[in-house]
Amino acid sequence: MKKVMNQPDRFVEEVIEGILLAYGDRLRTLGGDHRVILRNPPAREGKVGIVTGGGSGHLPVFLGYVGEGMLDGCAVGNVFASPSSQRMAEMITACDRGAGVLCLYGNYGGDNLNFDMACETVGFEDIQTATVRVCDDVASAPKGSEGRRRGVAGMVFAFKCAGAAAERGDKLEQVAAVAAKAVANTRTMGFALSPCIVPQVGKPTFSIKEEEIEIGMGIHGEPGIEVKPMLTADAVAALALDKILTDMSLAKGDEVAVMVNGLGATPLEELLIVYRAVHQMLAAKGVAVFMPHVGEFATSMEMAGLSVTVLKLDAELKALLRAPGSTPFYTSANK
Amino acid sequence: MKKVMNQPDRFVEEVIEGILLAYGDRLRTLGGDHRVILRNPPAREGKVGIVTGGGSGHLPVFLGYVGEGMLDGCAVGNVFASPSSQRMAEMITACDRGAGVLCLYGNYGGDNLNFDMACETVGFEDIQTATVRVCDDVASAPKGSEGRRRGVAGMVFAFKCAGAAAERGDKLEQVAAVAAKAVANTRTMGFALSPCIVPQVGKPTFSIKEEEIEIGMGIHGEPGIEVKPMLTADAVAALALDKILTDMSLAKGDEVAVMVNGLGATPLEELLIVYRAVHQMLAAKGVAVFMPHVGEFATSMEMAGLSVTVLKLDAELKALLRAPGSTPFYTSANK
Repeated sequence: MKKVMNQPDRFVEEVIEGILLAYGDRLRTLGGDHRVILRNPPAREGKVGIVTGGGSGHLPVFLGYVGEGMLDGCAVGNVFASPSSQRMAEMITACDRGAGVLCLYGNYGGDNLNFDMACETVGFEDIQTATVRVCDDVASAPKGSEGRRRGVAGMVFAFKCAGAAAERGDKLEQVAAVAAKAVANTRTMGFALSPCIVPQVGKPTFSIKEEEIEIGMGIHGEPGIEVKPMLTADAVAALALDKILTDMSLAKGDEVAVMVNGLGATPLEELLIVYRAVHQMLAAKGVAVFMPHVGEFATSMEMAGLSVTVLKLDAELKALLRAPGSTPFYTSANK
Repeated sequence: MKKVMNQPDRFVEEVIEGILLAYGDRLRTLGGDHRVILRNPPAREGKVGIVTGGGSGHLPVFLGYVGEGMLDGCAVGNVFASPSSQRMAEMITACDRGAGVLCLYGNYGGDNLNFDMACETVGFEDIQTATVRVCDDVASAPKGSEGRRRGVAGMVFAFKCAGAAAERGDKLEQVAAVAAKAVANTRTMGFALSPCIVPQVGKPTFSIKEEEIEIGMGIHGEPGIEVKPMLTADAVAALALDKILTDMSLAKGDEVAVMVNGLGATPLEELLIVYRAVHQMLAAKGVAVFMPHVGEFATSMEMAGLSVTVLKLDAELKALLRAPGSTPFYTSANK
């Protein structure tokens, strides 16, 4: 595996420079080290702000969801590393339009600590904040310990639903409640086929054997729950749904949103073959799919593999998912 | 490299089944073996039809561009193999809304032969056709032999411009002239870092050494013009622009559309680093970029690598590129 880059220690800076050159009409940075990406132009006065943050290496997560109807800001860390609490605090301040700010991000130790510190800091400026941590990865902790689970691709659904709630004029506690409901109704199961390379390391930081699949591996290579001989697409879909539906029951007549997300190197053709099986298995249970998302939404650089996410819908989440939302990396009308 | 699939000989069928399950509200097939994908609902009476076709394994090319403001139909071949002339003829007939049909596709032997036969066949039914072959790959034949060049990622710009011309009500010869102008103004240069696997073969059909980059390789692994030790992102951008601008001159004040296209396994982060360099080098020449496209638009399954495309714009092409266009795989408003 080779990386197309210049100096490894300027990797993140150059990605951000590329984004600003390509999409500078729709995004801006907070200046200084350009580690905070903001919606441009800013949202209207009185709209609840929604911010996120996390390590780099997962595009379009996280900064790709900054835009109309979704997020107001994103703090950008180094590859697989949390951004600083100082940048987070500056971002929250910049995104407060007088109605408070929801911090909505993946459940990882560093991000939790830094966002908590940032919220404390802006509290002294009388900025109201709320926090919802996305913890959709079923493989990362058992049922009953949902709060210990990592946040993975399911966070995109949370961004979309919360973003639409803020856009329609909900107050901070309502936006937070929508985000919490989306998270509570979302489960993701991931499968890794190959490792990925952190630019400053220059070689894979873990390995997966040529004929094996790692079930439940995290998007930073966190160990999964099982290693198996390579599976067919149908078996991957069956295993994902089995794990998800054991954890969150679905009944005949339920509606769900489904995301089949590529981790980096897996072709769109193969994601569609997995989607086919997921859709058919859900249909056999009398569960209908609304707005399928098939593509790369949350990656681990050049890792081969995929994840399957199911979001159980009610009328409110359906309307929020369908509401207009547009960033340089995501268009809801396109799904 | 492992493939997430079921039986290799059902690969294309299952991809199409997945697409119909996910996007059946916006696409339909012509029945039978489902090897013709059509826009759903069909275009209005009197609109010039635009169709394409080619081998599978390049999603979103080709069928991903069937939709409003772009293509009316696509004939789908096996992986890296041309669709049959019979299916092409059925597709042309289905897409004729009384104003004739433009066949707009990549310049490959099998596709040329089969589309020519299909046009002859539908000629007996008094359906008017025109043909424009996309030949944007500068590395595949020298200047002066442009007609022998292969069609690669630049075809997306041709689809978009011709599609918008048909949508605004142009007649067949005008739509063909727009497509021909877009093709004449487009140059692409590709770089491959790793091979890819045809499902029915099960292993890479060519190889690229671990520390090397193949310059000018085609999207089916056609040999490039040079093999070099791995290059930096800036060097890749410089080499691409040098080759493109030697072939098609740009002057201070010109405007171009730029596509930095991932071939499959190369992370979006790295494409953005290359875009940054391309943008800066063009800016240094006084050339402005309009509607940058950075992402995966024409792939070779899990091949690592990328291509750089430059489309020289005039006022007409600019307006056509910006016009609304929306398929399940592409939204112009998003770029």
